[in-house]
Amino acid sequence: MAGRRSAAEARDTRAKILRRAADVASADGLEGLTIGRLASELDMSKAGVIGQFGSKEELQLATLALAAEIFRGRVWEPVEHLPAGLPRLLAVCESWTRYAKKPPFPGGCFIAAASFEFDGRSGRVHDELAKVVKRWRKTLAAEVETAVRAGELGADTDPDQVAFSLEALAAGANPARQLHGDTSAASWSLRAMHAVLGVPAPKAA
Amino acid sequence: MAGRRSAAEARDTRAKILRRAADVASADGLEGLTIGRLASELDMSKAGVIGQFGSKEELQLATLALAAEIFRGRVWEPVEHLPAGLPRLLAVCESWTRYAKKPPFPGGCFIAAASFEFDGRSGRVHDELAKVVKRWRKTLAAEVETAVRAGELGADTDPDQVAFSLEALAAGANPARQLHGDTSAASWSLRAMHAVLGVPAPKAA
Repeated sequence: MAGRRSAAEARDTRAKILRRAADVASADGLEGLTIGRLASELDMSKAGVIGQFGSKEELQLATLALAAEIFRGRVWEPVEHLPAGLPRLLAVCESWTRYAKKPPFPGGCFIAAASFEFDGRSGRVHDELAKVVKRWRKTLAAEVETAVRAGELGADTDPDQVAFSLEALAAGANPARQLHGDTSAASWSLRAMHAVLGVPAPKAA
Repeated sequence: MAGRRSAAEARDTRAKILRRAADVASADGLEGLTIGRLASELDMSKAGVIGQFGSKEELQLATLALAAEIFRGRVWEPVEHLPAGLPRLLAVCESWTRYAKKPPFPGGCFIAAASFEFDGRSGRVHDELAKVVKRWRKTLAAEVETAVRAGELGADTDPDQVAFSLEALAAGANPARQLHGDTSAASWSLRAMHAVLGVPAPKAA
């Protein structure tokens, strides 16, 4: 019993650390994530934090995995049940811009921030981040292909070009909102996504 | 004579420090810019570096000013002489994506990286960055307005929405190229820019 309880406690502690780590990293970057800072913010010992992960890099990787899971839960899972092709793709654009408008992290979309922070670096965090984003892009590109086969999108639509463009437009809503206070950034983004897909824009909200 | 020569030398030293600072910050962020690191990379004393700027924040601000000047010289100045409106706007899209494809900094577009790094922060660097980007967005929005008045773009075109979208698409080419090795990112970006403007895409290069 005691053994099981302490395993559950360790999981809770790990979850608590990771959630705070994602919040910190969304605003100050994955490099800004130090064991000392987390320990102090969570009122834990540094040994208590490091004991869960072993190194700063492992902590960064676990934080990235959590952020990817949260992204998927907010953007993909709510629309996953819809018919594949254009209907689901347009629903993704909506859930994605909704996510960008009210991100679950204080510093905005974690993945977007990390992509700009780590793109010029090398190492395991860079590689894992590339893998996570590539998986998402493949999901988008497959959806575009389905839409093209169904005749919902033009035959000359380039799935990779669309996936790139949707990602850039969703990411751009973060600095727009946070740097410039653009309250319309999410709807600008959604409108541009429709233009890229070559489908009529939704009515302004 | 000695006085004049040393003023010129001081300017040269300052320019050399700033150029290196912009290179470092493009890859590792403006926060990654430390006096100690610059001094070591430039084989100078820390006092020699700090003496030129007074503080890390002043160094960050001066680096940002240099990056903005380089951006302007690469993206705006080559097209400034063209007729205002759609011709110049399309030329900006080309010079901008060309810049994103071959950025003058090792870590990609400095302004894009800094926007994602500093959007969730506060302080003078955040404020100055917001000012620099806002000035550029106003230039773009004014160009869109001119194009709308001339009937070159649809009357329902929203200048701020277009400025936001072009910026997001240009910025997105950085992580695409650096994180995923997308060699087509710049042409994808250019094609999406045309879609946002509602004008036919250029032929693939």
